Amino acid sequence: MRLSQFHLHTTKETPSDAELTSHRLMLRAGMIRKLASGLYIWSPLGLRVLRKVERIVREEMERAGAVEFQIPTIQPKELWETTGRWEKFGPQLLKIKDRKEQVFCYSPTAEEAAADFARQELSSYKQLPVNFFQIQSKFRDEIRPRFGVMRAREFLMKDAYSFHLHDECLVREYENMKSAYSRIFTRLGLDFRMVQADSGAIGGDASQEFHVIADSGEDALVFSTGSDYAANQEAAVAAAPGPRPAASEARRLVETPTQKTCEAVAALLGLGLERTVKSIAIMSEGGFVLALVRGDHDVNEIKLGKVAGLQGYRMASEAEIAAHLGSEPGFLGPLDPVLPIRIVADRDVAAMADFVIGANQAGRHIAGVNWGRDLPEPGTPGTDVADIRNAKEGDRAADGGQLKIARGIEVGHVFQLGRQYAQALNATVLDENGKAAVLAMGCYGIGISRIVAAAIEQNHDDAGIIWPEAMAPWQVVVCVINPKQDESVSAAAAGLLAELQAAGLDAALDDRGLRPGAMFADMELIGVPHRVVVSERGLAAGTFEYRSRRASEAESLDRQALLGRLTG
Amino acid sequence: MRLSQFHLHTTKETPSDAELTSHRLMLRAGMIRKLASGLYIWSPLGLRVLRKVERIVREEMERAGAVEFQIPTIQPKELWETTGRWEKFGPQLLKIKDRKEQVFCYSPTAEEAAADFARQELSSYKQLPVNFFQIQSKFRDEIRPRFGVMRAREFLMKDAYSFHLHDECLVREYENMKSAYSRIFTRLGLDFRMVQADSGAIGGDASQEFHVIADSGEDALVFSTGSDYAANQEAAVAAAPGPRPAASEARRLVETPTQKTCEAVAALLGLGLERTVKSIAIMSEGGFVLALVRGDHDVNEIKLGKVAGLQGYRMASEAEIAAHLGSEPGFLGPLDPVLPIRIVADRDVAAMADFVIGANQAGRHIAGVNWGRDLPEPGTPGTDVADIRNAKEGDRAADGGQLKIARGIEVGHVFQLGRQYAQALNATVLDENGKAAVLAMGCYGIGISRIVAAAIEQNHDDAGIIWPEAMAPWQVVVCVINPKQDESVSAAAAGLLAELQAAGLDAALDDRGLRPGAMFADMELIGVPHRVVVSERGLAAGTFEYRSRRASEAESLDRQALLGRLTG
Repeated sequence: MRLSQFHLHTTKETPSDAELTSHRLMLRAGMIRKLASGLYIWSPLGLRVLRKVERIVREEMERAGAVEFQIPTIQPKELWETTGRWEKFGPQLLKIKDRKEQVFCYSPTAEEAAADFARQELSSYKQLPVNFFQIQSKFRDEIRPRFGVMRAREFLMKDAYSFHLHDECLVREYENMKSAYSRIFTRLGLDFRMVQADSGAIGGDASQEFHVIADSGEDALVFSTGSDYAANQEAAVAAAPGPRPAASEARRLVETPTQKTCEAVAALLGLGLERTVKSIAIMSEGGFVLALVRGDHDVNEIKLGKVAGLQGYRMASEAEIAAHLGSEPGFLGPLDPVLPIRIVADRDVAAMADFVIGANQAGRHIAGVNWGRDLPEPGTPGTDVADIRNAKEGDRAADGGQLKIARGIEVGHVFQLGRQYAQALNATVLDENGKAAVLAMGCYGIGISRIVAAAIEQNHDDAGIIWPEAMAPWQVVVCVINPKQDESVSAAAAGLLAELQAAGLDAALDDRGLRPGAMFADMELIGVPHRVVVSERGLAAGTFEYRSRRASEAESLDRQALLGRLTG
Repeated sequence: MRLSQFHLHTTKETPSDAELTSHRLMLRAGMIRKLASGLYIWSPLGLRVLRKVERIVREEMERAGAVEFQIPTIQPKELWETTGRWEKFGPQLLKIKDRKEQVFCYSPTAEEAAADFARQELSSYKQLPVNFFQIQSKFRDEIRPRFGVMRAREFLMKDAYSFHLHDECLVREYENMKSAYSRIFTRLGLDFRMVQADSGAIGGDASQEFHVIADSGEDALVFSTGSDYAANQEAAVAAAPGPRPAASEARRLVETPTQKTCEAVAALLGLGLERTVKSIAIMSEGGFVLALVRGDHDVNEIKLGKVAGLQGYRMASEAEIAAHLGSEPGFLGPLDPVLPIRIVADRDVAAMADFVIGANQAGRHIAGVNWGRDLPEPGTPGTDVADIRNAKEGDRAADGGQLKIARGIEVGHVFQLGRQYAQALNATVLDENGKAAVLAMGCYGIGISRIVAAAIEQNHDDAGIIWPEAMAPWQVVVCVINPKQDESVSAAAAGLLAELQAAGLDAALDDRGLRPGAMFADMELIGVPHRVVVSERGLAAGTFEYRSRRASEAESLDRQALLGRLTG
């Protein structure tokens, strides 16, 4: 590949509307151009990187035994209605009417269509297990598309759907996919973690996410120093608290005229924040509920929604709060409600003694509150105990270690779906006994275009992108100084290029005739891992100037040392 | 590849709603499954073929110097309005409103977006010429989707857009693309023709189509026996007629009470159909026009629309006909109109003498009509001459040969667009003198998914598909008889598979354990070019049973002869 024959177009200006490093660098390197909000054209340079990711994903999926197929991007509404997801997906689903007023959507994922394909294709257990995957454009109508291809509306995704007769077979394929994903991200050269995700309706170890570690990541990941336990914030669990201390204080009303937060109340009373209790008023199907977490903890809405009876809860209105507690927000507490309420206490709250709660009177809190004396014993009817808080940095882990938090960018997700989709689509096969059995299903996604941005978030410096070798547009670029002035230099460079390519390297020749400074700046900006300079002076001395993208200095190497370095 | 690990699912039933052979065979072979009207899922088998076509197209585009990029499938309305094509495309354009009520479409082609990309990317003539291509899903909301992937709504297309400073450079790239396309269709192993297409607004040799020859083709292609002249019906031109004979008959009114067609009139009068003239009444911007073609010729609407003043014409209404000619349809003619009319005579009509026209009176025609005597001399104001008819089988060609007609399926189109899109999108570069110059543009399309269907239309028999080698899912399949019964047979088959693969063949092993009849029928249906059977008996004799998909008989070959045959 000669760069004079390749369209490369970098810019020095930092785009004003790009907030994220990867977005800025992809625009400056000329990898993408914006067509409209959340819609990007991939330039030849950008597409080269995207295709390298795509190729590795395809190879590892095939190595894992999956077979590729392809579903249309445009799918009929009826299909999505069979599972109720037409409604559930909400406005993220891009809806379309065709010329005959039939309604369709642009596929944001394809469980329904895959299950429908399985219904048509699979009739006997002998055809199982099978795992179909595709690599294809998807669309999610994000309310605020931003961060370039990190959160674009149209994006490239690998999605796979496996079908099984028995649950154990599904679990085996799930483990097989986890291994394949680990191989993919390892081959891509990324620092990644597999974390336990919210397992949704299925429970157990049925959903895991793959994250690229980066400070700019949107997701908080929780790790234990004591084992390889890792989970996303939604699912992470700290160790259960120790036994509850005995009550030692008398209950007392305290004046907190302007103190509406736990922080303010604790400061006023000179107590630690962990002695206070936060009351969150919500409405569930069964009525009004007060959820209690420690003042220094944050409620976890996913966990709260999984407590029996709280699925689909919403925040209570001020009117509902006034009706049940007789108070305005800021001074709420579980003691003496106006109307009967349900209490859901976090595990850590249930282990507290002598704590502070709102008094359900404006400007007042109650201190020295104790379970069993002032409030019903947790675990008795109407007063439930559950883990409903976010794990936090420094928490004790269940394995005895300490919890640490890192930031990650989600790039993969594997899921044991069970039988809900196959049931809805009537995808059955005849089992060993000739009876119709609903298929068990797994699904496995990888955000191909997002990986490109995530890799940049993890690997860059002031000069630009630093690609991991496997994702780089070219592994090595041979730069020619003054190609037109000296034909022997050009010939030597072309010879070296051929030699590198023969050694199996994805190499290119920068014969664009730029001045050295501009040429080197381009190569650094677009993140080429290895740069070799061929110059008249070097040729005279029998050396090439070599620089690794991660090194601060160039070095002079003869041909043999250079080849050894690049192929070693 | 072991077929037991690959999802293959053929059916014996002929699908009732499939009219076309390729549609039927693709469904029976299990290459595609219908998701909704005009929307098809590509099974692993179908996708394997599609990818082979895609790979060859990509390789030849790259060899020709084009660089790959990718444009979103979803594109903003504003972009399409800059060129007026939002309206022009009409209901074929799938229109979409997003959650913010912004309007988009699913790209059916991408000239606007490509020109917009060029506007952002190209600033100097030094970056030219450049040819960007992509391979991507497209959508056309066909009013009657049918014939499977031949005329699907969502389909896979290769589209390329080249940019140039000078017209000569555009012409050079156009020729380069024509060569690349010829290489592509040659490599695919298809019988194809490049034909001149309607050149639209640009004129000259600026648009050519590539057709796969097949009896079921929708398009009529016109060839000359005298040269390599070939054109589609819209553009094909016959030789100009010879000089006009002298008038020899007197003009006379003839009674044709029920004879409303040229055929009926000619039969009644005992004349050849080529002695009659058909009058077509149309309305143009300039008013009422009577277009005249010989009774045995068909008017060509594209050619007629290119006559000066007739762009965008429509058929005249009965009221308009009555007002201008004083008659009902069936008896129309150019003589003695009620109001002044314009006459456009086909070249062949202008060369007629003693001909028959309608009398503009119900039940009457006029015979013995002659130009210059009864009607104004063609070529004088108000009476124009032009080629406005379809060329037909047996016509004399301009090169002295004879015109022949064949049927074709359009699979490629190359076009010199000129500067209209770049002008509308303001895509300019600085030329050698530092002045802004609007880019000249070419576009080049290939219907990747349609090629798969077209290849089947051209290559099939009663047993199924007969793939050209380059498109086949596998070039050769090794079939094992009773794989579970005799391990030495399985081992020998696996050894042969490895040997074939080492020889560079795309080979698979049918180890599904089907009975020979069912296995062979599958291989014939899915069109595998070469089949090798490994059996206990054959092994004992030191032979393999080989059969070419196009041969009627199998033959026994030893290992060496087999390898020679397959790699020869």
